[in-house]
Amino acid sequence: MVEEKFRECIALCYQCADACDHCATSCLREDHVKAMAACIHLDRFCAEICRTAASFMAKSSTTGHEGYVTEICGLCAKICDDCAEECEKHDHEHCAACAAACRQCAAVCRKMAA
Amino acid sequence: MVEEKFRECIALCYQCADACDHCATSCLREDHVKAMAACIHLDRFCAEICRTAASFMAKSSTTGHEGYVTEICGLCAKICDDCAEECEKHDHEHCAACAAACRQCAAVCRKMAA
Amino acid sequence: MVEEKFRECIALCYQCADACDHCATSCLREDHVKAMAACIHLDRFCAEICRTAASFMAKSSTTGHEGYVTEICGLCAKICDDCAEECEKHDHEHCAACAAACRQCAAVCRKMAA
Amino acid sequence: MVEEKFRECIALCYQCADACDHCATSCLREDHVKAMAACIHLDRFCAEICRTAASFMAKSSTTGHEGYVTEICGLCAKICDDCAEECEKHDHEHCAACAAACRQCAAVCRKMAA
Repeated sequence: MVEEKFRECIALCYQCADACDHCATSCLREDHVKAMAACIHLDRFCAEICRTAASFMAKSSTTGHEGYVTEICGLCAKICDDCAEECEKHDHEHCAACAAACRQCAAVCRKMAA
Repeated sequence: MVEEKFRECIALCYQCADACDHCATSCLREDHVKAMAACIHLDRFCAEICRTAASFMAKSSTTGHEGYVTEICGLCAKICDDCAEECEKHDHEHCAACAAACRQCAAVCRKMAA
Repeated sequence: MVEEKFRECIALCYQCADACDHCATSCLREDHVKAMAACIHLDRFCAEICRTAASFMAKSSTTGHEGYVTEICGLCAKICDDCAEECEKHDHEHCAACAAACRQCAAVCRKMAA
Repeated sequence: MVEEKFRECIALCYQCADACDHCATSCLREDHVKAMAACIHLDRFCAEICRTAASFMAKSSTTGHEGYVTEICGLCAKICDDCAEECEKHDHEHCAACAAACRQCAAVCRKMAA
C-alpha cells in the first residue's frame, strides 16, 4: 500500500481524472458540442495532470525522496480549479459531477502542496 | 461518474498501479536491490498499463464507442499476472501486497476482456 | 540512447501522438465541432496508446526483457488505423496530417508486432 | 503538425524521456544496482514529467488556450536538472547519455517556461 499520507489525495486525483475523462466523452455526445469545446479541452489537461500527480505520490517515499509532491500537487490544484470553473457554467449532469470532483481534488492537492 | 460497468475494474487498476509504483520504490530501498531488479522492471510496465487501462475505460461509453476495453484489459491482465508471479518470489511486505493487487486486477481485467 | 531496433518505431509513435493531440485541439476550434466528435474521441485514445507504446519500447531491452513490445505495438497499430480512417473523412489540414501520421505509425508498429 | 513554437521543446522532452527509461532499464542490469538506486528512482519521475510536458505542448494552441506550458515546462526543467545531477555521478555510458539529454531538455524547458 502507498504511504498513508498520500492515500486520500491519490484517491481524489483518480476520481477527478475519471470524472474529467467521462465528462469529455459525454460532452462529445451532446447536441451542442461547440458550446462544450472549452470544457472538453480543459478535461483533457485535468485528467492527465491528475493521473500524473497520483503516480508521483504513489512513487514517493516520505522517509526517502518525496517525489516532487509539492510541485505536482500545486499544479494539479490549479488545473482542477480552472476545469471546475468551466464545468460550473454548464447544466449537464456530467459537468456538475466533474466540477464537484475537481473542487474536491483541488482542495486536497492544495493542502498537500502547502 | 464513469459508467457502472467499468467502476470495479478501474478501481482495481488504480490499486494495482499504486501497489506497483510503491513496490518499485520500496525495492530500490532494500539492501539487496540486485535481487529485486526483475521485480522493479515489471512494476514499471504494470503500473503504466494499469493507468492506461483505467484511462481507456473512463473515456469509454457503452452506448457509443467502447474504447478498446477488450484489448487493453486483456493486455493489462497478462502483465499483471507476470508481475504477480515475480512479486510472489519475494518475502517483502510490499511485494506481497503488490502480488495480491496484481492478481485481483488481472482477474477483473480478464473478465472485462472476455 | 534506446536500442537501435526500436528507434524508428518510437519516433513515429511520438509523431502520431503529437498529430492526434494537435488534431483534437484543432477540431475543437472548428465551426462544426459536432461533425468532428468521432475524430476528437479517437484522437484521445490514439495519442495515449502511442505514448504508452513508445514508453514500453524505451524501457525494453532486446537482450533482457522485451517489455511486451509485440502486444502494445499490435494494439497501437489497430487504434492508429481506426483513427486514420476517421481522419480521412475530413478535409481539414490537421486531419490530413493526423491521418498520414497514423498510417505511418500503424505500418511500423505492425512490423514491430510481427 | 504541432505549433512551430513547441517543436524543439517537445522533441527534447521525448529524447529525455527515452534516455531516462533506457537508463533505468540499463541500471537495473548493472552489477551494482544498489549504487544506482537514486538514479533509477529519478529516471522514473523524469521520464514521466517529460512525456506529460510534451503531451501538454502538443495539446496547446498559441492562439487559444496555452495549456499550462509555463508551469509544466518549469517543473520539467527542475526534475531534469536533478536527474542530470545524479546521472553525472556515474561512469556508465547510459548515465552519461541520460545526463546530456536531461541538461538539453532542462535548458529548452526553462526557456519555454520563462
